[in-house]
Amino acid sequence: MVIMSVPPSSQTFMPVLERIAEEIGRTPGRGRAADYIPALAACDPRSFGMAVAELDGTVYGVGDWREPFSTQSITKVFTLALDLAREGDELWEHVGREPSGNPFNSLVQLEYENGIPRNPFINAGALVVTDRLQTRTGDAAGELLAFLRSESGNQSLDFDKEVADSESANGDRNAALAHFMASYGNIDNPVPVLLDQYFRQCSVRASCADLALATGFLARHGVRADGSRLLSRSQAKQVNAVMLTCGTYDAAGDFAYRVGLPGKSGVGGGIIAVVPGRCTLCVWSPGLDERGNSVAGVAALDRFTTLTGLSVF
Amino acid sequence: MVIMSVPPSSQTFMPVLERIAEEIGRTPGRGRAADYIPALAACDPRSFGMAVAELDGTVYGVGDWREPFSTQSITKVFTLALDLAREGDELWEHVGREPSGNPFNSLVQLEYENGIPRNPFINAGALVVTDRLQTRTGDAAGELLAFLRSESGNQSLDFDKEVADSESANGDRNAALAHFMASYGNIDNPVPVLLDQYFRQCSVRASCADLALATGFLARHGVRADGSRLLSRSQAKQVNAVMLTCGTYDAAGDFAYRVGLPGKSGVGGGIIAVVPGRCTLCVWSPGLDERGNSVAGVAALDRFTTLTGLSVF
Amino acid sequence: MVIMSVPPSSQTFMPVLERIAEEIGRTPGRGRAADYIPALAACDPRSFGMAVAELDGTVYGVGDWREPFSTQSITKVFTLALDLAREGDELWEHVGREPSGNPFNSLVQLEYENGIPRNPFINAGALVVTDRLQTRTGDAAGELLAFLRSESGNQSLDFDKEVADSESANGDRNAALAHFMASYGNIDNPVPVLLDQYFRQCSVRASCADLALATGFLARHGVRADGSRLLSRSQAKQVNAVMLTCGTYDAAGDFAYRVGLPGKSGVGGGIIAVVPGRCTLCVWSPGLDERGNSVAGVAALDRFTTLTGLSVF
Amino acid sequence: MVIMSVPPSSQTFMPVLERIAEEIGRTPGRGRAADYIPALAACDPRSFGMAVAELDGTVYGVGDWREPFSTQSITKVFTLALDLAREGDELWEHVGREPSGNPFNSLVQLEYENGIPRNPFINAGALVVTDRLQTRTGDAAGELLAFLRSESGNQSLDFDKEVADSESANGDRNAALAHFMASYGNIDNPVPVLLDQYFRQCSVRASCADLALATGFLARHGVRADGSRLLSRSQAKQVNAVMLTCGTYDAAGDFAYRVGLPGKSGVGGGIIAVVPGRCTLCVWSPGLDERGNSVAGVAALDRFTTLTGLSVF
Repeated sequence: MVIMSVPPSSQTFMPVLERIAEEIGRTPGRGRAADYIPALAACDPRSFGMAVAELDGTVYGVGDWREPFSTQSITKVFTLALDLAREGDELWEHVGREPSGNPFNSLVQLEYENGIPRNPFINAGALVVTDRLQTRTGDAAGELLAFLRSESGNQSLDFDKEVADSESANGDRNAALAHFMASYGNIDNPVPVLLDQYFRQCSVRASCADLALATGFLARHGVRADGSRLLSRSQAKQVNAVMLTCGTYDAAGDFAYRVGLPGKSGVGGGIIAVVPGRCTLCVWSPGLDERGNSVAGVAALDRFTTLTGLSVF
Repeated sequence: MVIMSVPPSSQTFMPVLERIAEEIGRTPGRGRAADYIPALAACDPRSFGMAVAELDGTVYGVGDWREPFSTQSITKVFTLALDLAREGDELWEHVGREPSGNPFNSLVQLEYENGIPRNPFINAGALVVTDRLQTRTGDAAGELLAFLRSESGNQSLDFDKEVADSESANGDRNAALAHFMASYGNIDNPVPVLLDQYFRQCSVRASCADLALATGFLARHGVRADGSRLLSRSQAKQVNAVMLTCGTYDAAGDFAYRVGLPGKSGVGGGIIAVVPGRCTLCVWSPGLDERGNSVAGVAALDRFTTLTGLSVF
Repeated sequence: MVIMSVPPSSQTFMPVLERIAEEIGRTPGRGRAADYIPALAACDPRSFGMAVAELDGTVYGVGDWREPFSTQSITKVFTLALDLAREGDELWEHVGREPSGNPFNSLVQLEYENGIPRNPFINAGALVVTDRLQTRTGDAAGELLAFLRSESGNQSLDFDKEVADSESANGDRNAALAHFMASYGNIDNPVPVLLDQYFRQCSVRASCADLALATGFLARHGVRADGSRLLSRSQAKQVNAVMLTCGTYDAAGDFAYRVGLPGKSGVGGGIIAVVPGRCTLCVWSPGLDERGNSVAGVAALDRFTTLTGLSVF
Repeated sequence: MVIMSVPPSSQTFMPVLERIAEEIGRTPGRGRAADYIPALAACDPRSFGMAVAELDGTVYGVGDWREPFSTQSITKVFTLALDLAREGDELWEHVGREPSGNPFNSLVQLEYENGIPRNPFINAGALVVTDRLQTRTGDAAGELLAFLRSESGNQSLDFDKEVADSESANGDRNAALAHFMASYGNIDNPVPVLLDQYFRQCSVRASCADLALATGFLARHGVRADGSRLLSRSQAKQVNAVMLTCGTYDAAGDFAYRVGLPGKSGVGGGIIAVVPGRCTLCVWSPGLDERGNSVAGVAALDRFTTLTGLSVF
C-alpha cells in the first residue's frame, strides 16, 4: 500500500476536504471535550482533522489528519468484525442488532431483555463482543491491535496505558454492566479479565489516516488491505447496516438524516464513515455535543455528503 | 404515465421477481394475518404480490401485485412527506427522528420525553404528523388520498369505511396516546377529529402497483410523477433515512441488516422500499411475524437485494 | 350526633391542637398552592385548620377548621369504601393494593401490568374504582356526596361546578389513563361518562370538621355514624392499610415514617388521618410540597403523633 | 433474661399459636423453597415454626420454633438499626424510605434516582446500609452477629460459611448493583469487601425463638434486652414504619392489608413482625410464594392478627 498526501485519484475529494476544513475553521462553537478522564479532558476542542481513504489504500486529508487521538468506541466496529469473522451468526444470539433508542440508558433494556444487549455498539454489547472474542482468541485487545496495525500499515499503533488505567479507575459502570449480564449467563470470562481487555481496546491511539485505512474492508465488501477476505459480502453489509442504525449513540437517526452514511463515533472525538464500494472517511475533533458525538466531525461529514452527493440515500 | 406489465427496461428485474415469487411459493410458514380487526383477519396469509416501479413510472410485478390491500402504516410515509413539504424543519420540534427501540411500547418514552414522540412512524408520531397536516389542510386524510391517486394514476383508490370504523371501535390505545400528547400541548386539533382523520388515512386500500408508483418521489429525490417537486433533495434523503432507521417497528435494525433499503411496513402485510435513484418496490403478503412485519414480504425484499446487489450498503 | 366546639371529652386533645396551631403559625414557608386550575391557585397558602373527631361524633378544632376547601383526592378513600362495601374482594382483581413507588408516573406501570393500576389512590386506580361504583350505582358522584352529607351531618356539602369544569378542561391526562385502561378491558363505562363522574367527585367542597367526621367509620372499624355497618372489621382494616402504604402519593414511606398513621392527602391541601379505635383527624393548608402534600398539614400531623404518642407504631 | 417454654404471661397467646399451627398443618400447598443456592433448596417446605416474645424477654412457640434457619434478608432490619443508631438521619441522604413498588426490579429506579436506592430493604439499599456500617465499624457482619447473640441470649449463633460462599458464587447481580451505585459515588468501600460483608451477614442461621427475641427492641420503642437504649423512640417508630411499607418485597401493600403489622421476610422462609408496645413474632416455613415471602408464614401472621385483633389498624 502506498500512502500519498495528494494522489492522482483524489483530485475529486481533496478540494472538498479543503473547503470543509476552511468552513469548519470559520465556525465557532465546537462543544466540549469529554472530561471523565484526564487524558481526554486535555484535548484541544479546536483540533480538527479529516482523511479519506480510497479502496486501493490511497489516503489523504486535511488539518490534523495524521495526529493520533484516542479511538475509544470506534474500536467497537473492528472488534465486532473480528468476532463475526470467527463465529458468524451465532454471535447474534448473544447481542441484538436493533437501535437502543434509550436516552435513559441501557440497564433498563438489559433487564427487560434478559441480559441480551440491544446492539454491539452500546457499551453492554461491546462487552459481550469483547468477551466472545476473548474466548476465541485469548487476547481480544491484542487481536484488535494487530488488525489495526496491519490494515493501517502503521506498526507504531499502540494502547495508551494511562488512558486504559484511567478508564479502569472509573470503570464501575462497565463493571456493573458486565456483572449484570454475567448474572444472565451472557458473559463467559471473569469480569476483571474482560474489563481489562475492554479498557485496553478502547485506549488505542490512532490518526484519521490510520482509521480511514483500517475501515477500508467495509467499503471493499469485506476484503482486507492485503486482498484476503475478513468478512463475507453479506457480513460486511450487515456491519454497515448496524453502523448506520446504531453507530452514533442516541443520535443514530439524526446522523442518518444529516449524513446518510454508516458511521461510528467515539468520545475521543473521532468518527469513521463508509461509502460502500467507494471510500472510507475518518474525521476528528474532540469537542462533543450532548449526545457524545464530535460537533465539528458530524458537521464535516454532513458537508461531505452534501457536497459530493455520496449519501447512501 | 404508461403502465405496462413487462416493459423493455424491466428485463433485468422481471426474471428476479419471477424467481423470488417461485421461491416464496415453495416456502411454508408465512406467519399470521393481523387479527385485531375482522377485515384484516379475513386475509389469506398465502397471498403474495410484488411490484417494481422504475423512475419513469413503468411498473411491473408478480403474483397478486394488482390486488388492493389495506395499506395501514405504510401511509405514514406519505403523510410525513406531505406535512414536511408544507412546514419544513419546524415539524421536527414536535416529533423526533430517532428509532424507538422500545419493545415495551412508546408510552414510557412519551412520558420520559415530555410528549414528543421518537419518530413519525410509531403511532404517537404519526398522530402528531396527522394533527399538523390537519391543521394545515383541514382534511389530512383527503390530502393523502388525493396524493396517492395522483401518483399512482389510479383514481379508484379510496378509504375502506369498514376498516376505519373497526379501527375506531378498537381505538382506545390511540385515543390514550393522543390525549396524553395533548396533555403536553403537542396536539392542536380535538382528539376525536384527529382520530377520525387518522383511522381513515390508515384504511386506504391500494395494490403493490399503486404503492410502488406512489413511492416513486422518494427514488426521484423528491420529484413527483408529473415532474413537479414535492420535497427538496435533502428532504427526500431525510425521509429515506427515517424509513431505514424507523420504518419497520422494533425490527428496523434487522431490516437494515437483511434488506439494507429504506422501507416501511404495515400490519396489512404490505412493505414499500426505495432504491434511491433507481426504483421503488412494494411487496404484499398478509402473514406477519411477531414484530408485525410481513414474513414473506421481508424474505422477498431480502432476496431482491441479494440477487440484484441493490442494497444501499 | 352532637357537634360541640369544646366538648368535655376533648380536654386531652384541645390543648395539643392549640399548641400545634401556635407552632404552625410561627413557621414560615408553607409551599405553594396547586396552580393547574384557577380555583386552587386562588387559595391562600397561609390558611390552616385542623379538626379532631372522636368516635362518638364529637368534633372540635383550631384555625380554619370550619372553612370548606376542595377535597380533591381525599374523596378517593370514600369512593373506595363505597365500592368495596358493594362488591367486596372482586374489586382487587381490577386494581392492586401495592404502593406505586414510581416518581416518573403510573403509565409505565399500567403498561407493564396490563392495565391494572397499582392501588386505588393513584389517579388510574381511582378511575377504575369510580368506574365500578358507577356501574353498580348509576351515579358514583351522587353516591359519594350522599355519604359525605350523611356522615358529616352537613347537608350543604356540594360539588363545585367551576372546579369540575376546570378539571375537565385540563383532563387530557386522565382521559389518556382511562382510554389506556379501556384498551385492556379494565373500564366498563364510556370514557366521557366516567370522566364526568370522576371530576365531579373530586370537586366536592368540605371543611376539616366535615371530613374528620366523614372519616369516622374507619376509626370505628367500619361502622357508620348512625351505627349501621358500611364495611366489615376486616375491610376497614384493609382500607386503613392501603391509606398507610399508598395514601400520600410518592411520599407514603415518608408519611408513615414521620406521622405513622393511615392518611390520605389531596392537592387542595387537605389531609385526613385515622387513629384506629380512637379518633380521626383532618388538617388543611393549601401550600404543597413538591410531592403534592400539604406542608403545614404533614407538619401538624407529625406534631400531633409526637405530642400524643398516638402513632400506630 | 429468662426464657421459658410456657411462661405464665403467655397464657393468652399460646392457645392462639397452637390453633394456628394446627390450621397450618391441615393446609396443603406451601409454595416452593428458594432454589438459587443448594443450601436453601434442601429445606423441607413443610417445616413450620412460630414464636412470640413478650417485652420482658419471655419467649414461647410452636412447631419448629427452635430450629435454626437461614435468616437472609431479615438481617437487613438489624443492620439498619445498628447503622441508624450510629449515624442518625444522615443515613437517609444515601438511601430512601419509600416503597420500591417495582416488579421489574430496582435497577431502573436506581438509574432514575441517581444511585440512591428507594429503601433499606431492597438489596441495593441493604448494600448501602452495610457499606456505611462497615465504614463506621470495620466489621459490619461481626457487629450484626454480636448484636443478634446478645439480644437472643444465644451465643451459638453464627454465619453459615457454605451459604455465604454460595451467595458469593451467585453474586453477579449484587456485584452489578454495588458497582452501579459506586459509579454514582454512593458506595465507600471496595466492592469485593462490601460483598463479602453483605453475604456473610445474610448467611446467619437463627431460630424463630432467637429472632423474636432479637427483634424485641422494636416493640420496646428502641430499648435493648439489657435495658440500654439502641434507638430513640422516634427512630424505633421509623424502623417500624419502613418495615410496614417496605418489608416484604413487592408485597408490602398486601402484607399490610392482610397482616397489618410491621414485618420483614427473608428468602429462607422466615418473617419477623412487631406489635409495638406488646410483643414480637417470628414465623418460619421455607415454601415461598412468587414474590419471595413464606406462604405459611404470611398465613400464620394473618391468622394471628385476626384471632388476637393485634393489627396496628
